[in-house]
Amino acid sequence: MAPPVGIRGTFFDFVDDPWKHVGHEHEAARFHPDGLLIVEDGKIADFGSYDDVSKRHRALEVTQIPDRLILPGFVDGHIHFPQTRILGAFGEQLLPWLQRWVFPEELKYQDRDYARDAARRFFDNLLASGTTTCQAFTTSAPVATEELFDEATRRNMRLIAGLTGIDRLAPAEYMRSADSFYADSKRLIARYHRQGRNLYAITPRYALGATEALLAACRRLKQEHPDCWVNTHISEDRAETREVYAAHPGCADYLAIYEKYGLTGPRFTGGHGIWLSDDEFERLSASGSAISFCPCSNLFLGSGFFRLGRATDPRSRVRLSWGTDVGAGNRFSLLGVLDQAYKVGMCNAASLEDRPEEAERNKVSPYRGFWSITLGGAEGLYIDPLVGNFAPGKEADFVVLDWNGGPLAQSWRQSLTVDAAGPQTIDQAADLLFGIMMVGDDRAVDETWVMGRRLYKKRVEI
Amino acid sequence: MAPPVGIRGTFFDFVDDPWKHVGHEHEAARFHPDGLLIVEDGKIADFGSYDDVSKRHRALEVTQIPDRLILPGFVDGHIHFPQTRILGAFGEQLLPWLQRWVFPEELKYQDRDYARDAARRFFDNLLASGTTTCQAFTTSAPVATEELFDEATRRNMRLIAGLTGIDRLAPAEYMRSADSFYADSKRLIARYHRQGRNLYAITPRYALGATEALLAACRRLKQEHPDCWVNTHISEDRAETREVYAAHPGCADYLAIYEKYGLTGPRFTGGHGIWLSDDEFERLSASGSAISFCPCSNLFLGSGFFRLGRATDPRSRVRLSWGTDVGAGNRFSLLGVLDQAYKVGMCNAASLEDRPEEAERNKVSPYRGFWSITLGGAEGLYIDPLVGNFAPGKEADFVVLDWNGGPLAQSWRQSLTVDAAGPQTIDQAADLLFGIMMVGDDRAVDETWVMGRRLYKKRVEI
Repeated sequence: MAPPVGIRGTFFDFVDDPWKHVGHEHEAARFHPDGLLIVEDGKIADFGSYDDVSKRHRALEVTQIPDRLILPGFVDGHIHFPQTRILGAFGEQLLPWLQRWVFPEELKYQDRDYARDAARRFFDNLLASGTTTCQAFTTSAPVATEELFDEATRRNMRLIAGLTGIDRLAPAEYMRSADSFYADSKRLIARYHRQGRNLYAITPRYALGATEALLAACRRLKQEHPDCWVNTHISEDRAETREVYAAHPGCADYLAIYEKYGLTGPRFTGGHGIWLSDDEFERLSASGSAISFCPCSNLFLGSGFFRLGRATDPRSRVRLSWGTDVGAGNRFSLLGVLDQAYKVGMCNAASLEDRPEEAERNKVSPYRGFWSITLGGAEGLYIDPLVGNFAPGKEADFVVLDWNGGPLAQSWRQSLTVDAAGPQTIDQAADLLFGIMMVGDDRAVDETWVMGRRLYKKRVEI
Repeated sequence: MAPPVGIRGTFFDFVDDPWKHVGHEHEAARFHPDGLLIVEDGKIADFGSYDDVSKRHRALEVTQIPDRLILPGFVDGHIHFPQTRILGAFGEQLLPWLQRWVFPEELKYQDRDYARDAARRFFDNLLASGTTTCQAFTTSAPVATEELFDEATRRNMRLIAGLTGIDRLAPAEYMRSADSFYADSKRLIARYHRQGRNLYAITPRYALGATEALLAACRRLKQEHPDCWVNTHISEDRAETREVYAAHPGCADYLAIYEKYGLTGPRFTGGHGIWLSDDEFERLSASGSAISFCPCSNLFLGSGFFRLGRATDPRSRVRLSWGTDVGAGNRFSLLGVLDQAYKVGMCNAASLEDRPEEAERNKVSPYRGFWSITLGGAEGLYIDPLVGNFAPGKEADFVVLDWNGGPLAQSWRQSLTVDAAGPQTIDQAADLLFGIMMVGDDRAVDETWVMGRRLYKKRVEI
């Protein structure tokens, strides 16, 4: 067992949901301008102000990280590993976009060498974006899922993923039968689930691409492995949402399809949820199911605007993770997701003059935004006992942010809030974070640490 | 007179409006994988393929720019110089945002030293974004306008700007009377208009912030200086558009206010135009007036979605420039504007299933996007005889793009289209440009040249 090490710097994390603290959101956050994080065997052993914590840990090796904001690693709730190369593909809404761009690229992942190279690139991109955990779709061929888990294992990164089943509306060579999906999933669950930091998600791609047989196979898998996650899509696109009923007659709405097969509840995530009804929101809330909000993608495909203020209604709060949805999302960085989430929220708010409370809940403040991609995302994925903030016992995944990183314009913008001494108050820190999400980009990510080890350091510009 | 110099590289520019070539947009563009641009006294003396042009210019000093795409410099049709520091300011829609963030910052520009420092930063940001020409708002105090023109003159950059009048709904110390606006504008026109590359715009901030006296002063200025530009805002925000009628009773719609005072027609630009009626679009088209489309800002403030497919209807085509609208726009880069324009267009298109032609016109292809921030923007501002493409006689402003510049993910994405030899066909070049606008950012801007001189070179990452 290695001796504990300390990280000294300026820390910002969350202990509660800022939507529960309207008007005084800082109460949901913690800020230590001079803090100390103690890491032992990759986990957080202690955390607090330097003055307090250092007294409890004498003769400690301490790494100083000055002039930076240290936050918990970002959590990406919805991303497609095999779309790493086709992010930003021109011109189509969801259904034609899948046929034209996605399936041809994902078919390449039947080749193990291609999948392995792609997995390296995928995690390199995540780390350069400050993302330490994601919930990922793979392809219908087991090779891609294996290579993804194997690469995560080599990096010791927490990953939720699973073989991605589809047996309708895809090229013949891409589809797999429900039986083979079931058998391959069983084998992959045995091999990867809860091995190291890996977690397995039973992953029907989406209801429109699933026969009843495929969803029945998912139900059987979930019954046999209730501890597994379930990851899919829901109500993303108008055309898709119209067509899904023909594939699943008798289901009253999109959510009812997943309910029918026993897939909803804790550890269920449906990506997007643009066109959900109020009734579906209420059932998601009641069952503890989650939506993954992916604004880059929703705008890129023209899918629509997620009703963030509805999902965060305290009377029927829905768990959320936020996702890039690469490659329909055109940015690997969750900071880019926050930019787009802010704009979706402002557009929603402007159309809700008659519902001021819902309008207000659409405003993605830096508190709400950064909570959503750290602790909030971990709660949405039911991994908050493991990651999401600096609570002792959790895994030491964190990101080191340079608040001046980004376009040239950033540093003068940030100088409105702080001088060279950096942030002294939690509201100053929050304003710097707002600058990072709206003016900055992945250049703000200076370092990314996983289990107490630095896995990424930004190249220096000269 | 300095001897002519040659720039050899891969060139991409436009000779026509891609919206006129639906289905074969490349007919509006030109591509020279091995091209030669001849610059003499800051202007383009010759342009074409290296084989052709080099025969006509022997013993020429040639600068080689390999592995890059060279495009005309970007044109920003709508930007607020004195908001350079407050881009990305949290939380409000237009009217409260102006009061809380904008006027306090713009008041600082009464101080000449602050304005001069800001002007340096402003042009540094433009050049780092590949923008060589902008149409800018200033403040109500002449100092800011003077410093802006003086800095543009020092850099020999083409600029349209003007003292920005407001005499309603602003802090008392920010407002100026119509008489002082008239007198100051007269003096500034005499001092700057058509001096060097400077062009003067009579600039009432917006109709809601203008009394009848201020707009009458603008009319008099325009009558006395018909050669000047007119720059303002129109129909940006729902609340603003509702309230403007109380300020200007008797006007049937927002455009009618500017029409009443003789301000519309060639060289008129109204920023935003989100809430324009079909009738207003038709009158804009008929009079040769332009709208500046600013999607970053429209989303950031939640103002709404510009009807791009309506504005580009060939039956009543409206001239457009595209703008960042810094600081309500949160990015200085017009590449960021193209990202957001694409998304606005896709969302518009998805809601126009019953009008497929208008839906199609909303799709911001790389041809449409890059035309809009080069030749199209120049046409919108009526400066296309001066800048916008590589036609001989125009000013030699251009940007050198690294198609791999941007986040780590970019180079693998671009390798789907080209290998190390770079683009060989116009469609390959266009696909790289789409990657630049959707996956890249200002990091794609490697060099920016003004009047044949390199004024910006990106720092190298090691």
